[in-house]
Amino acid sequence: MDAITVIRAKRDRAELTDEQIDWILAAYTDGRVAEEQMSALAMAILLNGMNRREISRWTQAMIDSGERMDFSALTRPTVDKHSTGGVGDKITLPLAPLVAACGAAVPQLSGRGLGHTGGTLDKLESIPGWRASLSTAEMLAILADAGAVVCAAGDGLAPADKKLYALRDVTGTVEAIPLIASSIMSKKIAEGTGALVLDVKCGSGAFMKDFADARELAETMVALGTDHGVRTTALITAMDTPLGRTAGNALEVRESVEVLSGGGPADIRELTLALAREMLDAAGLAGVDPAAKLDDGSALDAWKRMIRAQGGDPDAPLPTAKETHVVAADRDGVLVAMDSFKVGVAAWRLGAGRARKEDAVQAGAGVEWHAVPGDTVRAGQPLFTLHTDTPETFDTALESLAGACDIAAPGTEFTRSPLVLDRVAASNR
Amino acid sequence: MDAITVIRAKRDRAELTDEQIDWILAAYTDGRVAEEQMSALAMAILLNGMNRREISRWTQAMIDSGERMDFSALTRPTVDKHSTGGVGDKITLPLAPLVAACGAAVPQLSGRGLGHTGGTLDKLESIPGWRASLSTAEMLAILADAGAVVCAAGDGLAPADKKLYALRDVTGTVEAIPLIASSIMSKKIAEGTGALVLDVKCGSGAFMKDFADARELAETMVALGTDHGVRTTALITAMDTPLGRTAGNALEVRESVEVLSGGGPADIRELTLALAREMLDAAGLAGVDPAAKLDDGSALDAWKRMIRAQGGDPDAPLPTAKETHVVAADRDGVLVAMDSFKVGVAAWRLGAGRARKEDAVQAGAGVEWHAVPGDTVRAGQPLFTLHTDTPETFDTALESLAGACDIAAPGTEFTRSPLVLDRVAASNR
Repeated sequence: MDAITVIRAKRDRAELTDEQIDWILAAYTDGRVAEEQMSALAMAILLNGMNRREISRWTQAMIDSGERMDFSALTRPTVDKHSTGGVGDKITLPLAPLVAACGAAVPQLSGRGLGHTGGTLDKLESIPGWRASLSTAEMLAILADAGAVVCAAGDGLAPADKKLYALRDVTGTVEAIPLIASSIMSKKIAEGTGALVLDVKCGSGAFMKDFADARELAETMVALGTDHGVRTTALITAMDTPLGRTAGNALEVRESVEVLSGGGPADIRELTLALAREMLDAAGLAGVDPAAKLDDGSALDAWKRMIRAQGGDPDAPLPTAKETHVVAADRDGVLVAMDSFKVGVAAWRLGAGRARKEDAVQAGAGVEWHAVPGDTVRAGQPLFTLHTDTPETFDTALESLAGACDIAAPGTEFTRSPLVLDRVAASNR
Repeated sequence: MDAITVIRAKRDRAELTDEQIDWILAAYTDGRVAEEQMSALAMAILLNGMNRREISRWTQAMIDSGERMDFSALTRPTVDKHSTGGVGDKITLPLAPLVAACGAAVPQLSGRGLGHTGGTLDKLESIPGWRASLSTAEMLAILADAGAVVCAAGDGLAPADKKLYALRDVTGTVEAIPLIASSIMSKKIAEGTGALVLDVKCGSGAFMKDFADARELAETMVALGTDHGVRTTALITAMDTPLGRTAGNALEVRESVEVLSGGGPADIRELTLALAREMLDAAGLAGVDPAAKLDDGSALDAWKRMIRAQGGDPDAPLPTAKETHVVAADRDGVLVAMDSFKVGVAAWRLGAGRARKEDAVQAGAGVEWHAVPGDTVRAGQPLFTLHTDTPETFDTALESLAGACDIAAPGTEFTRSPLVLDRVAASNR
């Protein structure tokens, strides 16, 4: 077996055999296949595709490149959620403790942000004292006690994926649905969750700009989970407009705590509950009403236990940025659109995100918006507040926000689009 | 400008701009674009293609990555030949001195063999004393004196191509017509020849297995030469059957000297004369009859001057292999086919070629065949003689020769296929 034969096979539109897939991922992980060989293969996969059997085997080979976790000692059913990433998408923060409060165990291995969408760990790290790195033993103890844990994935899970993801990032091969699906699912399956709910974002601020691609990715991942014995469903949700009212680390924690307290932005509450119902259903806990757990304070209690278990002080004041700048509406009218990509890039440029893996993020930086599509606005009324410790970034953030809001003539009719666009489950493929 | 933007453009089937092409090749040559980025781009080019403008600019950027030679001081017109490589293809050896004897200057920058087709320099190095490395000044002096020089291309010509070729070799991206064409033509144009004749091989022992691909490659290269002011024509020639009667280094030199002496295998003489006529036509010397120069000894004189000028002794005995092994026909009949790929691999395994760049070749090793398609053979009659210094390679060479000959029933009619399949010139595109 050699790399060139495998590359040529996919280049010439052949199906890769199980042996070819197993060999290339094992050899890539231990360095016998060079980076330039894997990047040529990744481009061939991007352009020529893989079928369900190939993607399933590819995912299995990535899982087999590392260790697997085991939650079978827990008495509660495990269920995890993964979002493909969007602007203002802080849903994991209220969702994990909410589902724990309903009786499931939520082992949430998360990542840091890169580019215009924020990372869950970056957000939680704005809480004084909170730490993302846990040993497996600590993770299991927190899961048993608090019912939910959000922490960094260890290096031992799917190392082939870690290496391949870094390569795809610099070679223009990120946007391959088979590779996106196997990357996400190899980590989730290796993590050992019993059930999984996917939030596949679709729209200007998401990775998948159009519905057909989002649907294909969702179907591919649901099939992969099903093939590997994980009960998997997916919601395809809108990401044209940023979620909630803020994009930024501490800003989003504050908003999440509002939702956990029974309040908060309507869209965050709606999506949190929709995903919670999917998760509870997948975990065999369909009889529990998650809305009641937000309203009676038990979700907030679970949040506090979860934060404390990881060294954080849930009652400490959250960091705020040193400087703010307000952007006002330039006319009267109805706000009919707010571009999530532009808002995400602005938050990122203000310091909420990082351009390179090794960069630090600012806890207080980000964008807050004071109107959402459907709202009537008046000229001079604040539309955005920008937050940063580095005021020299205001100009570039403002540049990015140019044209982010579409204000139509006063009195224009506005119909809100649905937040959940579609649902994909194994049975309806 | 950055590598990912250029990769994504070609991945998404866009035309690359002149600026993108210039930037990526300059940045790749000096190491700012990583090998894994260029291999992803090479795969995208292989699968999505480039148009004539892109290929022309790509070639120009490769030329611009290094130095250019200048033969304008010579009083004779310069004309070069390039073959895409075949089994037993020693045509350069008789052709260069023949065309020199007819009045042109032939600056032939050649390579070493890798894989199943032999390299011109490897063949000439079997001549005692002959050396391939010359300074530019030596090369010009030999051209002015002997009229022909065959030597190694210096590192200064098209260094981007040198780096890219090594990368394509290990990433399954060799078989991209735009990259093959620009690789060949960038070196030939940088070399500074006034005219160029291409021998594009087609068949089992060639790089291009089918006629449509060979024709596309020929047309692409003729267009590139024309765009860059080099009078370029191409012959598409058959490579299903190996050329002549031998494949191996000293074995092919011996055969070439037979042709230069007015004898030798009919196909070698025919193809040498066909290419010589193309070259003389391109050099403005169409009135000269090359057949007469083979028959009157002037081509052989030019050969001897050329070999002596590079330190070789044209009259010294050529090296022979230590061991030989004869393969006999297993039945009576008519030899109707001999597979050039199988013969080439056998010669290579016997030691005539190299598996890795750093390997040495054996001067005496190779395969000699005693019948050609159309010949009547008898059971027990010798078909092949294998030559090697390493008799442990006989088994693997015999394996490769299994099924190389197709012997049909005695009396079977056989019609020889033409050697020259097509001609491509700028005017008939």
